Amino acid sequence: MSEQRVLTGITTTGTPHLGNYVGAIRPAIAAATQPDQQSFFFLADYHALIKCQDPEQIRRSSLEIAATWLAFGLDTDRAIFYRQSDIPEIPELTWILNCSAAKGLMNRAHAYKAAVQANEEAGEDPDFGITMGLFCYPVLMAADILMFGAQRIPVGRDQIQHVEMARDIAQRFNHNFADVFTLPEAVVEDNGAVLQGLDGRKMSKSYNNTIPLFESEKKLRKSINRIKTNLLEPGEPKATDNSTLFQIWAAFADDSETSRMRQAFADGIAWGEAKKQLFELVNDHLAPARGYYMELMDDPGHIESVLQKGAQRAREYSVPLMQRVRDAVGISSMGGR
Amino acid sequence: MSEQRVLTGITTTGTPHLGNYVGAIRPAIAAATQPDQQSFFFLADYHALIKCQDPEQIRRSSLEIAATWLAFGLDTDRAIFYRQSDIPEIPELTWILNCSAAKGLMNRAHAYKAAVQANEEAGEDPDFGITMGLFCYPVLMAADILMFGAQRIPVGRDQIQHVEMARDIAQRFNHNFADVFTLPEAVVEDNGAVLQGLDGRKMSKSYNNTIPLFESEKKLRKSINRIKTNLLEPGEPKATDNSTLFQIWAAFADDSETSRMRQAFADGIAWGEAKKQLFELVNDHLAPARGYYMELMDDPGHIESVLQKGAQRAREYSVPLMQRVRDAVGISSMGGR
Repeated sequence: MSEQRVLTGITTTGTPHLGNYVGAIRPAIAAATQPDQQSFFFLADYHALIKCQDPEQIRRSSLEIAATWLAFGLDTDRAIFYRQSDIPEIPELTWILNCSAAKGLMNRAHAYKAAVQANEEAGEDPDFGITMGLFCYPVLMAADILMFGAQRIPVGRDQIQHVEMARDIAQRFNHNFADVFTLPEAVVEDNGAVLQGLDGRKMSKSYNNTIPLFESEKKLRKSINRIKTNLLEPGEPKATDNSTLFQIWAAFADDSETSRMRQAFADGIAWGEAKKQLFELVNDHLAPARGYYMELMDDPGHIESVLQKGAQRAREYSVPLMQRVRDAVGISSMGGR
Repeated sequence: MSEQRVLTGITTTGTPHLGNYVGAIRPAIAAATQPDQQSFFFLADYHALIKCQDPEQIRRSSLEIAATWLAFGLDTDRAIFYRQSDIPEIPELTWILNCSAAKGLMNRAHAYKAAVQANEEAGEDPDFGITMGLFCYPVLMAADILMFGAQRIPVGRDQIQHVEMARDIAQRFNHNFADVFTLPEAVVEDNGAVLQGLDGRKMSKSYNNTIPLFESEKKLRKSINRIKTNLLEPGEPKATDNSTLFQIWAAFADDSETSRMRQAFADGIAWGEAKKQLFELVNDHLAPARGYYMELMDDPGHIESVLQKGAQRAREYSVPLMQRVRDAVGISSMGGR
């Protein structure tokens, strides 16, 4: 098959922020326009349940994430854009893969091991507070990937191991039963921009240092004004390295604008002035999508219909794949055999 | 709700034998005729995948088990008789329950602990050869039970723990989200007859000591002739205690026939004569069902249609329950909210 299948899940627990946009949404939407590539994007709501027990937050996040991707012009005639929980084959495949997945493999998963280590350091039972959701998560992820025969899985470094586990489980199944699964490969996005947050650490919901994508203009200005800077006065030259402000600028500006701001830093631009210009740059960039986003958020029925169309397209892959899996393991129907 | 819901799963890995019939099938079919009881019987083929990697064996066993229950007259207008893998809500609920199930709970499951102990005694890694299927099995069983609001789960002693785990997971979900699940109770079948096999141990596929239910007459006679007896000659009084032969007799005979055989043992009946009489008793009992069984085995399409009807009835319970679960955790659809 010459078409490359690329699969990306987005966990529905948070509100999309500038870091998500620059690091994931923008490059993914651009990549989805490439010929010979079939992109699968999904709202990973079964994954969200692992860490979030607030149903309103999951509902809200699902809506916001879907609206965001659509607002930035994701072409849902090309890319297959669906909600994980609309594909009943996924939990079914998860169970069947459980029976080909070694428990020892899961024992070695980084996320699980980190949780165990934290418990041990706190003097707790190693599995204190750990759910089967967290422990089984790599099997669900394997089902997400293997269901669609995805060859390329764009991931951060911390997710490479999970793609390798999916390969391992797929190989074991193919060996024991029939050659059903395509072996996926992790594609590490080393050049994927990681944006710093308000406090200079990586922008992340867990650090509470994000700039949400689609606040009002007024709130966006306020957020940008909160970016941490140093005490250098106007006129004093400023370093661009490690400057959150400059980094966000560079993520939204073209080359010539970036050069201009670099020079302005060297020339000692005042922080207030730099923030004002950054607000204008980012706001100009986001304003058109923001309008569309607001419309979409007011029309969840439309988003639902887009997701339903995506689910229908996704199931054109998942239903026949699952039939092969069922035949291979022996749970197919009795009629007509 | 005044109707009692009783749920029983049958793992589809073996060929039904006299022990299954006496210990499980016959009492279950009888119980299913009770008013105020709604019985759920299912072919547990997702469970079968945990221990069986032979698709033909699972297919064959599913067919044989379904044909057996129908041949003995299970009333599928009253009882809901379905195949687990026809209910897509079951693996979905399994995933969602994972997120409410403590991993520590699974660590304590008897079946898992026994496997770990065997590994440790063999000097292997504790989790050697253990799949996620074995480890996660109690969560699947919890989904089986909670899906249908079953209150009573008839089990052997070794399964009490799994029903308690289902209660525990249900309580945690009800506490965290919404009061969705009925808490099940294990009903231990202490008076459930456990039949001895050919060698005097419990009749079980794993001991290879079974008498299959629906062999030909000739094979049934041969099987019964292979029942282990002692060296006592004709005329020597024989003990009924621990006699496999007498035990099987008592399982099929009425009280007066049982008294008569007890007397015959005391009077020193020859083993050959006792086996001849046992064959006749069992064969008379099974012959009518055997004919129907053979017809059914030749018509898998009919069995399939019975199972499809059962699945449709089961889904009248599982679909609305799953909708409540989805609403409770926050993965419901966006339209119309």
